Amino acid sequence: MADNSEQPKEQSKSALKKAEKQAKMAADKAAKAAKQATVVVGQGKKTDDIIGITVKKEEDFSSWYQEVVLKAEMIEYYNEISGFFIMRPASMYIWNVIRKWFQERIEAMGVEETSFPMFLSAKSLEKEKDHVEGFAPELAWVTKAGDKDLEVPVAVRPTSEAVMYPYYAKWIRSHRDLPFRLNQWNSVVRWEAKQTTPFLRAREFMWQEGHTAHLTEELAGKEVLEILEFYAGVYEELLAVPVVRGRKTENEKFAGGYYTTTVEGYIPSNGRGIQGATSHCLGQNFSKMFDITVEDPAEKGKHIHVWQNSWGLSTRVIGVMVMIHGDDKGLVLPPRISKLQAIVIPLGITAKTTAEVKQQHTEKLEELRESLKKAGVRVDVDTREGYTPPWKFNDWELKGVPLRIEFGPKDMEKNVISYARRDTGEKGTIPIADLATKVPELLETIQKDMYNKADAAYKEHRIQVTEWEKVVPALDAKNVVLIPFCLEPKCEENIKDTTKSKDEHGNERMGMKSLCIPFEQPEGLVKGETKCLNPTCGKNAEAWVQFGRSY
Amino acid sequence: MADNSEQPKEQSKSALKKAEKQAKMAADKAAKAAKQATVVVGQGKKTDDIIGITVKKEEDFSSWYQEVVLKAEMIEYYNEISGFFIMRPASMYIWNVIRKWFQERIEAMGVEETSFPMFLSAKSLEKEKDHVEGFAPELAWVTKAGDKDLEVPVAVRPTSEAVMYPYYAKWIRSHRDLPFRLNQWNSVVRWEAKQTTPFLRAREFMWQEGHTAHLTEELAGKEVLEILEFYAGVYEELLAVPVVRGRKTENEKFAGGYYTTTVEGYIPSNGRGIQGATSHCLGQNFSKMFDITVEDPAEKGKHIHVWQNSWGLSTRVIGVMVMIHGDDKGLVLPPRISKLQAIVIPLGITAKTTAEVKQQHTEKLEELRESLKKAGVRVDVDTREGYTPPWKFNDWELKGVPLRIEFGPKDMEKNVISYARRDTGEKGTIPIADLATKVPELLETIQKDMYNKADAAYKEHRIQVTEWEKVVPALDAKNVVLIPFCLEPKCEENIKDTTKSKDEHGNERMGMKSLCIPFEQPEGLVKGETKCLNPTCGKNAEAWVQFGRSY
Repeated sequence: MADNSEQPKEQSKSALKKAEKQAKMAADKAAKAAKQATVVVGQGKKTDDIIGITVKKEEDFSSWYQEVVLKAEMIEYYNEISGFFIMRPASMYIWNVIRKWFQERIEAMGVEETSFPMFLSAKSLEKEKDHVEGFAPELAWVTKAGDKDLEVPVAVRPTSEAVMYPYYAKWIRSHRDLPFRLNQWNSVVRWEAKQTTPFLRAREFMWQEGHTAHLTEELAGKEVLEILEFYAGVYEELLAVPVVRGRKTENEKFAGGYYTTTVEGYIPSNGRGIQGATSHCLGQNFSKMFDITVEDPAEKGKHIHVWQNSWGLSTRVIGVMVMIHGDDKGLVLPPRISKLQAIVIPLGITAKTTAEVKQQHTEKLEELRESLKKAGVRVDVDTREGYTPPWKFNDWELKGVPLRIEFGPKDMEKNVISYARRDTGEKGTIPIADLATKVPELLETIQKDMYNKADAAYKEHRIQVTEWEKVVPALDAKNVVLIPFCLEPKCEENIKDTTKSKDEHGNERMGMKSLCIPFEQPEGLVKGETKCLNPTCGKNAEAWVQFGRSY
Repeated sequence: MADNSEQPKEQSKSALKKAEKQAKMAADKAAKAAKQATVVVGQGKKTDDIIGITVKKEEDFSSWYQEVVLKAEMIEYYNEISGFFIMRPASMYIWNVIRKWFQERIEAMGVEETSFPMFLSAKSLEKEKDHVEGFAPELAWVTKAGDKDLEVPVAVRPTSEAVMYPYYAKWIRSHRDLPFRLNQWNSVVRWEAKQTTPFLRAREFMWQEGHTAHLTEELAGKEVLEILEFYAGVYEELLAVPVVRGRKTENEKFAGGYYTTTVEGYIPSNGRGIQGATSHCLGQNFSKMFDITVEDPAEKGKHIHVWQNSWGLSTRVIGVMVMIHGDDKGLVLPPRISKLQAIVIPLGITAKTTAEVKQQHTEKLEELRESLKKAGVRVDVDTREGYTPPWKFNDWELKGVPLRIEFGPKDMEKNVISYARRDTGEKGTIPIADLATKVPELLETIQKDMYNKADAAYKEHRIQVTEWEKVVPALDAKNVVLIPFCLEPKCEENIKDTTKSKDEHGNERMGMKSLCIPFEQPEGLVKGETKCLNPTCGKNAEAWVQFGRSY
């Protein structure tokens, strides 16, 4: 599966070194700031300014992102080995929500769970040539056990086609065994040479990988799209991130596969496209290599190579979500995937408050918590001592909790709570009697508003372009473009080269690559008439294709 | 964590080679038999005899076990690399039930989930000397990425103490951060030199590893026992396997730890003890090496090294369960962890059956399925065509489904179903009107009876021995023994050497090792008076210690 594995081949070694150095500096800076913040907090000082994000999202997006995932405690850099990250509870929670949601759906389809070894022998890897070529440069090789050299080195799986399919040949004996569907949740290793980024590109990442076999192309194709729709659902329904569904061009499809479908996202801050998750039809390529056949139910004695799919969704989804929703105060989490949906912060208790009011206040807080919990809200009360309410506001904003509830003696008198939305900053009050209905409603409103905002940004910056001259300016203005395209691999390579540009500092901006052939095609392309937009091409356009600078 | 890592150091190289060869032969035989069976089934022939287990549990326990896990489709041998196994859906289901059960309980304790990289740098590994010595011979080293040598090789984690604790030093800043508790579900690699066995000892295995930090020894010790009790619960409540709770001796404790608690099982077929799962108090050993400190809340300026625990439960549990409950027909699954609790097999429909009766029968089967599902029973109806009922009986017996329900026209007339219990073979009938209450009751009865049977066997073969001469005969009669013991490491080594014996073919039987110091101590040991049972020792006995030949 191609997820996480794209390589911008045009990048030169020196550019790469420079980028790595920059990333390292940004990471060090973020780590230092985080450490400072923690140390200060640890000593119990009430500095309200230092725990926030020190970089503006608009000004330095890459550093901003690294600070957010670090300070919101989603990620820790694994200093021992570069390119690896630790997933902390804040991100594991999100991954587990996604896992549960997706697992329920594939289980209902009849997909069963399995667990294959993490190592791959060179022998099985060599069977599918295109496939091995795609992954060979990134394979991590175990050559020693203890102090002894292994007779035959083994590689850590970069994906499991070559691990699993020898056994598919053994287990699939009859058309009655079809569809044959297995999925596993694990981590894979791709020793990327290029710059790594938390969640988006790491040398080890967690994912699920589904591997299925079917009797016909049609049945395989149906499943490819069912799974793709689940992937879209993870983004749209859970992460409040809009995606475009489509098919990859030949250049961008999975190594060794037949065709690849994809959900493609968009990062407004830098105008880049980002591959969300991919669902591949492998056709009969692998079944021919691994000899996976069944007897044709329609013709005795005739053997059919099965049609195979593989599909994967990785922790990359979390990074996309952070990039799209986060702001200068830190993380902004959609309520459906947030471990804490609402945080209650006690206010207005001072040295002058009477013991009676204090007591009443504490009891009322407990009631609030209980009634919200009963209403199914994931809620907590921040009773930490030694911190001011503004410090707590900043802390929870940094961590992205969707709803802040403030409750002081004045609210108590009026029988209301005050709230502030994390996504918009909007404030209001809710009568305590209505909490159990109004808070869940408000959380759903936040979820929808976050999606709608991201969707509007995507729609605004996904531009149909019919004049070649307007392509690069559109990219420079942070858009992805839809252009009439011939679908030829060579033309695509050419476009990648000719759409580079320079920014105001003279730094090169990457050329655009094809993101997908959207299933939903706009009007206005006449087959046999409309030409490919690349002026050096001259061929007819086959489809509107979404291109963009991308991750 | 020491789970899965014991090494019988007395085993010579040639004995090892021989054992490996034997295991390979048994595995090949099992694989061949399984393949034959599958091929025959694949061709639709109705041979009732070939799908079963070809070896008797009593006669050749090791081959029997390998056949059962293979033919019941729990495991597939990973032929590409020796010592690795594929976990198939039948075993993944059980692991997921256990995972959910345990996860709920640790979550309620406040343990959070994390995911650390699978690789370990040599540098962090070197910090804790005893620890690294324990694992060094089994480390798998990645030395190459693509075709380039790594500047610094990295090892695949055998357990994650050395991966995680540098970050504990960073994250734990104040006593208010304590208890600090993280757990991860992953797989680890220990490149065992000795013979591997599905579930029990593999070069890669799945587990959970919890790593926590506490302010005091007492708080750490409390958690060690809470976790141990959950481990006992996995065995006793889910797997119907009795265990003895206790503490490991110095020789058998976790490398680098302070003390190790354990749940110990017993395999009646060969009289061996087997370590079930371990919960370790690491004391301050690791916190001193990795510099994990907090300020003493009772004394400003004074720093305390935190008290740490680590605890792990692996897929080994599944192997123990198979060994204890399985029989000559195959797997026997406790209802609580069985994916299918009841299988309904249609009977008595022949060429002579009228269309009306057939129709009625089909409808009634559907009703049965629905009413059982509603009652919370995991049930299916075996409507496969081309197989006789006896063949289906064998197939589901092989796979261990706890309850077989037979339903034919005669049952239909009487408004009953007939059933057969997998564990005892006991047969009976249940009125259809009572199914929704009687079947769940019966499943619970099966669960309890399976536990009680295994418990009786353990109790019968766990013998208090107070005369040295009776120790080896007791072991040879497939017992584990409780003896007064001095707790000295050297004496323990001596006992291991002096309790070897020869079987009827002249093959050496291993000596016994200490399994645990049971928390529940029998009467009759007077401190300062009772001597260690080892006649060459002469020291006073400190406790009753459970010894046995063991895995």
